[in-house]
Amino acid sequence: MTAADQPTTIEWIEGGGVTTPRGFIAGGTYANIKTYGEAPRMDVGLLAAIGPCTVAGVFTRNQVVGEPVTWDRRVLAAGRPMRGLVVNSGNANTVTGDQGTRDCERMAAIAAEVLGVPAEEILVASTGVIGRQMPMDKLESGIRAITLTEDGGYHFTRAIMTTDTREKSCAVRVEADGLTYVVGGCAKGSGMIHPDMGTMFAFITTDAPADRAWLDATLREVADRTFNMVDVDMDTSTSDTALVLASGAAGGATIDAAHPAAHALLDAIEAVATRLARAIAGDGEGATALLEVIAEGAASLDDARLVARTISSSPLIKTMITGRDPNWGRVMMAAGRSGAIFDQRAASVWVGEHCVLDHGQPTSVDLAQVSAAMAGEEVALRIHLGAGSAIATAWGCNLTNEYVSINADYTT
Amino acid sequence: MTAADQPTTIEWIEGGGVTTPRGFIAGGTYANIKTYGEAPRMDVGLLAAIGPCTVAGVFTRNQVVGEPVTWDRRVLAAGRPMRGLVVNSGNANTVTGDQGTRDCERMAAIAAEVLGVPAEEILVASTGVIGRQMPMDKLESGIRAITLTEDGGYHFTRAIMTTDTREKSCAVRVEADGLTYVVGGCAKGSGMIHPDMGTMFAFITTDAPADRAWLDATLREVADRTFNMVDVDMDTSTSDTALVLASGAAGGATIDAAHPAAHALLDAIEAVATRLARAIAGDGEGATALLEVIAEGAASLDDARLVARTISSSPLIKTMITGRDPNWGRVMMAAGRSGAIFDQRAASVWVGEHCVLDHGQPTSVDLAQVSAAMAGEEVALRIHLGAGSAIATAWGCNLTNEYVSINADYTT
Repeated sequence: MTAADQPTTIEWIEGGGVTTPRGFIAGGTYANIKTYGEAPRMDVGLLAAIGPCTVAGVFTRNQVVGEPVTWDRRVLAAGRPMRGLVVNSGNANTVTGDQGTRDCERMAAIAAEVLGVPAEEILVASTGVIGRQMPMDKLESGIRAITLTEDGGYHFTRAIMTTDTREKSCAVRVEADGLTYVVGGCAKGSGMIHPDMGTMFAFITTDAPADRAWLDATLREVADRTFNMVDVDMDTSTSDTALVLASGAAGGATIDAAHPAAHALLDAIEAVATRLARAIAGDGEGATALLEVIAEGAASLDDARLVARTISSSPLIKTMITGRDPNWGRVMMAAGRSGAIFDQRAASVWVGEHCVLDHGQPTSVDLAQVSAAMAGEEVALRIHLGAGSAIATAWGCNLTNEYVSINADYTT
Repeated sequence: MTAADQPTTIEWIEGGGVTTPRGFIAGGTYANIKTYGEAPRMDVGLLAAIGPCTVAGVFTRNQVVGEPVTWDRRVLAAGRPMRGLVVNSGNANTVTGDQGTRDCERMAAIAAEVLGVPAEEILVASTGVIGRQMPMDKLESGIRAITLTEDGGYHFTRAIMTTDTREKSCAVRVEADGLTYVVGGCAKGSGMIHPDMGTMFAFITTDAPADRAWLDATLREVADRTFNMVDVDMDTSTSDTALVLASGAAGGATIDAAHPAAHALLDAIEAVATRLARAIAGDGEGATALLEVIAEGAASLDDARLVARTISSSPLIKTMITGRDPNWGRVMMAAGRSGAIFDQRAASVWVGEHCVLDHGQPTSVDLAQVSAAMAGEEVALRIHLGAGSAIATAWGCNLTNEYVSINADYTT
């Protein structure tokens, strides 16, 4: 029996985050870059690995990308171990022309100087308004003012928030092959989240020693089931970034696909990513409910993913939940425009536990009960396409007046 | 010099609509199917051709379609001349199972009986809530109660409205090859409008005698530049229908591609379709502004259409306009995720007359002036991709709190 057949026991670590795994220190500070909002908020952060670490990254599929995405892709392509990640919120350094390119290089260089490593070993992530030059004086003062500590993950997490209302971080511990590995993570989400690349930022750390190619494949596989299945609105950011940094401080042999702990470590990374993805969806701009959509009975995994994501991102579904309106026909409408192939007379739909459509025939369910199933902080929609056996889950949130207010006044 | 090289003189007919062209009568009535809203509103309508007429139709690309769409596709495929169109609002007869199929057939049969023609010569269109059985008693009484008149287009237009706040109808007159042709039209739009098939309903009539194949090709060509370039939200209805009915009452030879009046008649149909498309966009649910997006310098027409439609449908662009927020970077964000190929350093962006990005470099434009260009009932955004010479125009609207309120409470 191989390890892959054993269920992994995931132990959640209360209050955990990116500095819970051994080998990482972090911090954040107030640099006055994030000028909107009432009170000053942290907006510059630094995460450092005590030694060289292995990193995998996935980025936005938007054709227009922020300068930090271009920088990160380049330094990761070089394949060398990395030493740190410098972040800011309030300005995305995107569509900022040649000046923006120089500013991003400078941002990496300042962090590198602080950590005493080459600039090419520093990753960069910036989020915020697009098309404005980065206030470099404020940024430089901020980076130099950060105090790095072993419990600084909380400050680092606060520094990447924009319209997020809650910090999103967690950590887990797994035992595998006689050793204990810890995986932590933090994320920012809120608006401009789309399935093309779920989260704005998700940074995951682990003290496991990881093979670069295995870590890369693992992040892609996990992101497809988590961050890429989250939607807040239909827009995709120019800066979306998910990184996994592995310090190796837990000791033991480098984990690759053949290592007995590989399956447990993947499960731990997926547990952290799933919790972050759900937190991003539930904290969508103005959202008051998390929407979980399961599409099953699809002819292919692609179809299942398409249907789940189309339903979870439909404005008409999202407003229906806000109003607890039992207008379940919209689920079929969204599935129908997803591009997935199915016969509407073979499809069934559930709202919570209530079957509202049974093989293409509307049921005589009490609509008041359907409405009641849409109250609460989590709403579940399920569709069976009757076209095969593939299944996928997507997460979204409801659409409220608050979303409109937030986005009508973002830069002013 | 061919007629195609001559600009067509389009004469607008004040107060015109579907009964302005010769050969059509119409009417509408109150059947109490559309029960939401404060006051009773017309909800059943009938449009009849005095003699057999040639019809072309295009329908939603949603996999899930209303029973009337299935019916219309079948009777149009038979290729015989048609005699009438029966419509209702308040119930879409969609995802209604076998009962819904029988009800749609019955709806056509009742209208056919009223007009004294076979049921297979009647087109059907239903809009409203999905997944509820049609109240057939009310519908039948309604159809039988309608008075058909030569100026009944106004009542017919009112009968197809759902959350629309204004009637959408118009008519034009063109002179070509020694004869006068009239083209009229009406539409309903508002929510659930998406580029996959712009309008919920657009019904165009003309007294020109038209060749079936030419009319079909003309409608497809015109719809691609008009109804398919309109977006209110990202959802696509299960019932979207655009029809052109040609009575031939103007006399003269049948118009096909080789007829000297073909170009003028296409221009007249496109003028009506463009006005209806703009009216649909400007009257989007809760909208206070019409958004016109021009994408130029694209590598292909497909890319230009993709960019224009992605920008016009982006929630972040739509809320930006509501707030008159000069956050123009969102235009690049939307263009970037459209799938079109371009180099962000070659792109330029204008808000109204103001250039905010020049070949990838932000300009020093006064953001207060950019904000001012987003006031008013029409807002113009333009992007030059620097990738070729293709151009396309799309229409959308802003996103307001009112959209959320309308859609949170649609069926309750």
